[in-house]
Amino acid sequence: MSKPQRASGMPTHKYLPFDQQISVDLPDRTWPDKRMTKAPQWCAVDLRDGNQALIEPMNAERKLRMFRMLVEMGYKEIEVGFPAASQTDYDFVRMLIEGELIPDDVTIQVLTQAREHLIARTYESLRGAKQAIVHLYNSTSILQRDVVFGKDMDGIVDIAVEGAKRCRKFEETIPDTKIFYEYSPESYTGTELEFAVRICNEVMGVFEPTPDHKAIVNLPATVEMITPNVYADSIEWMCRNLRNRESLIVSLHPHNDRGTAVAAAELGYLAGADRIEGCLFGNGERTGNVDLVTLGMNLFSQGIDPEIDFSRIDDIRRTVEECTQINVHERHPYAGDLVFTAFSGSHQDAIKKGLERLQQAATANNASIDDLVWAVPYLPIDPKDVGRSYEAVIRVNSQSGKGGISYLLRSERDLDLPRRLQIEFSRVVQHVTDDQGQELTGDDIWRIFADEYLPATPASDMEPWGRFRLRGTRAVSSDEGPDTLEVDLVDQGAELNLRGTGNGPIAAFVDALEGHGVHVKVLDYAEHALSAGGDATAAAYVECEVGDGDVLWGVGIDPSITTASLKAIISAVNRRGRNS
Amino acid sequence: MSKPQRASGMPTHKYLPFDQQISVDLPDRTWPDKRMTKAPQWCAVDLRDGNQALIEPMNAERKLRMFRMLVEMGYKEIEVGFPAASQTDYDFVRMLIEGELIPDDVTIQVLTQAREHLIARTYESLRGAKQAIVHLYNSTSILQRDVVFGKDMDGIVDIAVEGAKRCRKFEETIPDTKIFYEYSPESYTGTELEFAVRICNEVMGVFEPTPDHKAIVNLPATVEMITPNVYADSIEWMCRNLRNRESLIVSLHPHNDRGTAVAAAELGYLAGADRIEGCLFGNGERTGNVDLVTLGMNLFSQGIDPEIDFSRIDDIRRTVEECTQINVHERHPYAGDLVFTAFSGSHQDAIKKGLERLQQAATANNASIDDLVWAVPYLPIDPKDVGRSYEAVIRVNSQSGKGGISYLLRSERDLDLPRRLQIEFSRVVQHVTDDQGQELTGDDIWRIFADEYLPATPASDMEPWGRFRLRGTRAVSSDEGPDTLEVDLVDQGAELNLRGTGNGPIAAFVDALEGHGVHVKVLDYAEHALSAGGDATAAAYVECEVGDGDVLWGVGIDPSITTASLKAIISAVNRRGRNS
Repeated sequence: MSKPQRASGMPTHKYLPFDQQISVDLPDRTWPDKRMTKAPQWCAVDLRDGNQALIEPMNAERKLRMFRMLVEMGYKEIEVGFPAASQTDYDFVRMLIEGELIPDDVTIQVLTQAREHLIARTYESLRGAKQAIVHLYNSTSILQRDVVFGKDMDGIVDIAVEGAKRCRKFEETIPDTKIFYEYSPESYTGTELEFAVRICNEVMGVFEPTPDHKAIVNLPATVEMITPNVYADSIEWMCRNLRNRESLIVSLHPHNDRGTAVAAAELGYLAGADRIEGCLFGNGERTGNVDLVTLGMNLFSQGIDPEIDFSRIDDIRRTVEECTQINVHERHPYAGDLVFTAFSGSHQDAIKKGLERLQQAATANNASIDDLVWAVPYLPIDPKDVGRSYEAVIRVNSQSGKGGISYLLRSERDLDLPRRLQIEFSRVVQHVTDDQGQELTGDDIWRIFADEYLPATPASDMEPWGRFRLRGTRAVSSDEGPDTLEVDLVDQGAELNLRGTGNGPIAAFVDALEGHGVHVKVLDYAEHALSAGGDATAAAYVECEVGDGDVLWGVGIDPSITTASLKAIISAVNRRGRNS
Repeated sequence: MSKPQRASGMPTHKYLPFDQQISVDLPDRTWPDKRMTKAPQWCAVDLRDGNQALIEPMNAERKLRMFRMLVEMGYKEIEVGFPAASQTDYDFVRMLIEGELIPDDVTIQVLTQAREHLIARTYESLRGAKQAIVHLYNSTSILQRDVVFGKDMDGIVDIAVEGAKRCRKFEETIPDTKIFYEYSPESYTGTELEFAVRICNEVMGVFEPTPDHKAIVNLPATVEMITPNVYADSIEWMCRNLRNRESLIVSLHPHNDRGTAVAAAELGYLAGADRIEGCLFGNGERTGNVDLVTLGMNLFSQGIDPEIDFSRIDDIRRTVEECTQINVHERHPYAGDLVFTAFSGSHQDAIKKGLERLQQAATANNASIDDLVWAVPYLPIDPKDVGRSYEAVIRVNSQSGKGGISYLLRSERDLDLPRRLQIEFSRVVQHVTDDQGQELTGDDIWRIFADEYLPATPASDMEPWGRFRLRGTRAVSSDEGPDTLEVDLVDQGAELNLRGTGNGPIAAFVDALEGHGVHVKVLDYAEHALSAGGDATAAAYVECEVGDGDVLWGVGIDPSITTASLKAIISAVNRRGRNS
């Protein structure tokens, strides 16, 4: 308790504190006394910064899906690509314009470096658009000036100013498109503030913004380097020192290297910024761009309209997951699987009392809960407002929750249930616990599983576990025609021999059953070994439509992968008979 | 560009801004001018707050594994459970003490509510420990006082003070254990500051801490309610108003409901706190506790020793993932799979130049890179310092990275390769791109895959793709003995008929090959349908040891699941022949 912590041995000598790199000095800061009262101007950069950081960048179809969703949610500025750097991005911009897919009140934004041929290509991509933001950037940090560009400050200013001039020149080539400008001193957080404000002022001198036709000065935390209050200080400093502030839109673009991008955006917004660039669920380079969902929902939780519709957050999440192939984490604010759950009894009790109190107040006032101020312990917002629901997860026993059933079957029995089967089986377990009100052990869960899906050894063939039992098969396969399968079954005590053909044993077995008046259609299957080795037992899971439309799963466990699948089909068929 | 954003229609009327609930007024705050210079006193609560929020709480074995790792990393205060509320926790505390598993410089901490029988049980659990922190809490927020407890301020103070007195009383029952105290006004962020400081002062009046035997005042953001600067203001206010401050350790316990827990901990630490409670990778209720890894590594990146060893971050991550059954997100700071990658050419170029410059400087100074100050664009720390490496992901083409090969096979060909096969195949692709230096399309990847794993249609049996080709099978299975399999093969052009037995077609086929002098051992297999339906084609993946120890994968695609697996074995056998 006297802080016995010891030196870790990690090489701290390799790192300079931020304040020895960049000086941010603003003792008379005003932002900590400010409060958020309205939504900033949002810009979604999912299709550019987010996309370029994907293992698998989006194809045109996924890009369009993302674009349409962003528009539907209410984003009015969307960075759609870096057309001069990527043919895919160029083609996508052309598709949006030529397909007339951009609503009149939405402005697309394209990124470009300052080089002449890239700028030419960028304007070419925009021809025919009603309006667009041309986003010019170059790197300005001490490190990049030295290591990457080998230029002094004047040389770096030249790159930016020459780029801006070229933009103005090419602007004339597409007179029917209303052009707005954005300039980013990239790696701003590693740039001396005096130099950052100088280069922004010089570039804006070329763009000549007015209060009626503003330009955007974007100040990216390309790499997040220090606590968010220092970023906010720097933003307030810039807002004070930028010339012609009334003609500028000051924009933030935080990355999340220190895990504080949301805070950096919020404090920077308090510090005087007007606009925030980010990605849904914080996709983007390395640790990601700032998360637009969390930012918007944080405003909402303060009674401030985010001006973005998050009311169907699961749909948004699914689309993003499919487009980016990256899952949203279980604990992601507002959207993760676990964020509206309560496991602990005292939390559940408090939530229950809070919900009851709200209901009483609603009844007393002849109102709906939705008319009242939300006030429930441990639930910062009403999950319903984002289309979710509160889940009190009651433990099956002290070592497992209902959601842990699949885990138990996996860890104790090596069974890796497909997701839809997990859901089906959790209803089976729920049913048993509701009936018996008892705590369940891992062995109980296995018994329930075996009783539901696997044939018990029957006392005799006259008292079978289900209608059918498999006794044997003879399969013939050839590369010159379909497989044939002869199968020995017991059907309610009676021996039976069936025969079917198909392009494999499952198809042949389904064919054989059909001939016996049992209709089965296989919708999905999966199979895996329970342990290593060719002798290992296999588990087969088959999702079947049985009879006239009932869909249910069957499970088969057998040393033979073929027999396991046939048993799984029988399991599904028998289950239908048992449950109906 | 004139901010055409519109009202979202979301029910903002349901939410009161924080400042209309709780007043935090500190215009003369000093924390924004402070800097972090040393590590706080850490307390890891993974085994309590983290554990209680798991779908599947840890069993004793996983708890012990987590405890040992926390000790090894350097944590000296570890909250190990809520023994009065859970038999599992109680047993775990006893196991630690009776097994003498707690190093002398480590202090375990246990949580308890204020009720007499719970406190009795808590002290019972501690008997025999050298030292321990008893962590007493009760809820103090406006909402919980009203809704959950139905008590006024005095009533809530009574709960806490009576609890503290009972603690002092039971302390006498275990005189050989040195007891320290921690008090949490739970739901502190929803509590009026005047009331929070009153209840803490009254409880501390009972605990009677001294500068030589301090007590901990823990101020939890049980629910994170507002921007982190306001939390910091409240902490500075508390530090000014707590009595006997020199005898207190002020502790933070942020949750992450607004995605700003790391910032709240950092700004609260600047504001005068001494200690931080959190969990590795931000496990914990709902959105999680503050992440101890990010906090520690943020200090490290400023040249400040976290006093915790993160040098093998992958091992830490793996242990946490196994203990919690929750994965660390791809973009999690310092530890996610993607955080030391660069996909964009300009980033890769800048990183390359930065690394070269470091190498030059090292050579010029006759030093190692590890002696120099780290300065590489886009890499906030040297990945080596946490046992990771920087990965420049070069796109195979504009639509795919090397890491995207598996994605392409999945999305375009419905093939879901097991992870080890993915790794094996990525080496095959790497080999081709190194040889040819060309960009690869999705079709190219499919051709490489088919050429490597699937038999090409041979011009004739005299020029086969590999040694063996499968022509047909006859399988007999019975519930009264092993399966038999007759198989027609072509072996280097010659027709061949083999026969084997085993407990399934794979085992029987392996047996048949063995009789023909070909040794195969199946190590792993997986199989799935390429689409829905019993007629669907199946893909089988088999990991085999072929001959005298070569381990390689085979793939078979066939409408029959049985034939697909046999083909997969042949694929592995043939590949060995082709590659050797």
